[in-house]
Amino acid sequence: MRATVMPTAHEVRIENVPDAALQQPTDAVIRITRACICGSDLWPYNGGPNVENQRMGHEAIGVVEDVGSDVERIKRGQVVIMPFADSDGTCLFCEEGLQTECVHRGFFGNGTGLDGAQAEALRIPLADGTLYPINVGEDDALMPSLLTLSDVMGTGHHAAVTARVRAGGTVAVVGDGAVGICGVVAARRLGAEQIIIMGRHPARIALAKEFGATDVVSERGDEAIARVRELTNGYGVQSVLECVGTEQAMDTSMGIVRPGGAVGRVGVPHYEAIKGAQDMFYRNVIVAGGPAPTRGYIDELLPDVLDGVIEPGRVFDRTVDLDGVPDGYRAMNERQALKVLIRP
Amino acid sequence: MRATVMPTAHEVRIENVPDAALQQPTDAVIRITRACICGSDLWPYNGGPNVENQRMGHEAIGVVEDVGSDVERIKRGQVVIMPFADSDGTCLFCEEGLQTECVHRGFFGNGTGLDGAQAEALRIPLADGTLYPINVGEDDALMPSLLTLSDVMGTGHHAAVTARVRAGGTVAVVGDGAVGICGVVAARRLGAEQIIIMGRHPARIALAKEFGATDVVSERGDEAIARVRELTNGYGVQSVLECVGTEQAMDTSMGIVRPGGAVGRVGVPHYEAIKGAQDMFYRNVIVAGGPAPTRGYIDELLPDVLDGVIEPGRVFDRTVDLDGVPDGYRAMNERQALKVLIRP
Repeated sequence: MRATVMPTAHEVRIENVPDAALQQPTDAVIRITRACICGSDLWPYNGGPNVENQRMGHEAIGVVEDVGSDVERIKRGQVVIMPFADSDGTCLFCEEGLQTECVHRGFFGNGTGLDGAQAEALRIPLADGTLYPINVGEDDALMPSLLTLSDVMGTGHHAAVTARVRAGGTVAVVGDGAVGICGVVAARRLGAEQIIIMGRHPARIALAKEFGATDVVSERGDEAIARVRELTNGYGVQSVLECVGTEQAMDTSMGIVRPGGAVGRVGVPHYEAIKGAQDMFYRNVIVAGGPAPTRGYIDELLPDVLDGVIEPGRVFDRTVDLDGVPDGYRAMNERQALKVLIRP
Repeated sequence: MRATVMPTAHEVRIENVPDAALQQPTDAVIRITRACICGSDLWPYNGGPNVENQRMGHEAIGVVEDVGSDVERIKRGQVVIMPFADSDGTCLFCEEGLQTECVHRGFFGNGTGLDGAQAEALRIPLADGTLYPINVGEDDALMPSLLTLSDVMGTGHHAAVTARVRAGGTVAVVGDGAVGICGVVAARRLGAEQIIIMGRHPARIALAKEFGATDVVSERGDEAIARVRELTNGYGVQSVLECVGTEQAMDTSMGIVRPGGAVGRVGVPHYEAIKGAQDMFYRNVIVAGGPAPTRGYIDELLPDVLDGVIEPGRVFDRTVDLDGVPDGYRAMNERQALKVLIRP
C-alpha cells in the first residue's frame, strides 16, 4: 500500500510500504477515506525532533476492513473517526474522559511505533477503545467537519475547556491556524461574549470572524498585549487559548490573561519552562491544557456537527490525493493553505 | 500604640508608633484582639526581600473602634475577621469571589503601604469590603479557629480548591507547616479519600493525621516522589497542595501529580519559572493557585468552624502577648512552634 513518509526534515514522500495488517487480537485495520495534514506535522518538517523515515498523519476517518479476534464493539464495514491517539477505553484515565492520558496511550504518525494516517490504510491498536463509529456514509457531505473531530476541532475545544471559557466570558485565541480557528468555534459554542482572534492572515481572520470572533489583534509581542488590554478595559481576558506552542505565543498568553484567568495550551510547547512563576502566582493565573482527549469530546461535539450548528470542516481550504500530499505540506508551511484535506 | 516592626532581617522589635487613625472616609480602625505569625513572615525574617522597618502581621480578629464617614456596613463595636488583603467588595474580581485580585487590593504588613496586624490597633482601608463581622464575643473559645479564617485556613482551602480536590479523590500536601495542615483539613472537608501529608516533624504529622491525613511521606526529593507513586499505584495524586513555595517543593509537586491532575500553589513562590513545561503539557497537568481570597471563603468555612466540624485553630501551639512576638518569630523559625497566636 502507499503511505506518507518523512525521510528527513523538509522532505515528504509517498512510498510503497507493507500493507497495514492485524498484529494483536485487539487491533483493527481501517481503509483511510479522509485524512489531513496538521500544523504539528510541520514541526518535524521544519527540522524539529523527528524520527528517520517517520510515517506521517494522525487524523482520519476510515472504513473498518478487518478486526482482531478480541475486538467486540467495532465491526467490519463501519465508518469510524480515528482520534490522533489510541486508548484502551477502560483505564482510570479513559473512564474520566482523558483518553490522551490512557495508560496504553500511543500517538499515531509521530514516530513512536504507531503508523500514520496519511496513507491508504492503517492498523489501529485497541480498536474498541480508540475508534468512534458514526452512522453516515463514507462520502457524506459532512465529512470535512466530521474529520475535524479526530483532532483539530477537539483540540480547539480542549483549549477552550482548559481555559475555562464560560458563557458571557472574554476570550483571546493566540494563533490563526486551523486549531486557533476551531478554538474560536469552541469558544463561541460555549457562549463566550468577546472572542479576540490574534493573527494577521486575511483569509483566516475572515473565517474566524464568520465563526464568531468579535475582535482582531494583528500586532505581535508587547504591542499585541497592549492592544488586548485596550479591548478589555485594561484587565486582559478570562480565557486564553494558546494554539501555537512557541515561547513568544506563551509570553503573549501570560501577558493578556487577566487575574484569576486561565491559559489553555494546546500548541505543542517548544519551550522548556513557563516564565513568570511569581507574577502568575500573584495574579492567580491558571495554566492548563495538553494533548486533547478528542476521543472523549466526540460525544459532545458530534451532535452539533451533524446538526450543522458548527462547521469546523471549513478550515479545509485545499483537497489533495496521496500524490498531492508533499505539495500540501509545502502549501501549509508557506501559509498558502490553512489546512489540507487528503482523499487517499 | 505598640506594634511589631522588622527593622531588618533577623530582627523583630515591638516599638511605639503613631496610633492607628482614620485617613480615608472608607477606613475603619480596629483594636486587635487576636493576631498571629505567618510562615510567610519568616521570608523577610530570613533575609528575603523586605522593607526597612516593615510593619508586620496580616492576620487578625479585632473590634471596630472607629469608622469613616463613608463606611456603611461595618459598625463600631463589631467583632470582625480581617483578611490578609483589603478589597473594595464591588469590583469585578470581588464580585467573582476573588478578593485578592481586587483592583484596589493591598496586603497588610508586607511593606506595601498597609500597616501590620501584630499591633494594638490597625487602620483598615475599604472597611466595608474588607472586614467580615462575626456574631461572637471577642474572647469566644472559638477565637483560634476563627482567626485562621483570616489567612491560614482560607489559604489551605484555596490550595485544595485550585488543586481541584474532589470527593473520593487522591491528594498530597507538600509541607507540614500550618498552611499544609490546614490543607489537610480542607481536603478532608471536601471529601478526599487519600490524603498524603509530606513532612517529617512528629507533632505536626500527628496533628495532620488527626485532621484526616491517611498517609505520611517523610522522604524528600526523588525519594519522596517515588514513595508517593508507590502509595498511588504508580500514578501520582489527582491534587497536590503546594504549601511551601521553594523550588524543591514545586519540583516535588510536579513529580507527584498524576496526568490530568492539578497543583494548587499557595506557598509564596521563591523561584522564577515553572520547569518541565513540556512534561506538564504531555501529562495535561494544571498549575493554579495564588494569594487566597480568604475574604470570599469565610461564607463557606465559617459555619463549619462555628459548628465545630473543623478545628483549624489547633494549629496554634503557642500564645504570646506583644512582648513575646520576637521570641515567637524565633520559635517558629526554629520549628519549635507550629504557629504562634498573639493576644496584644
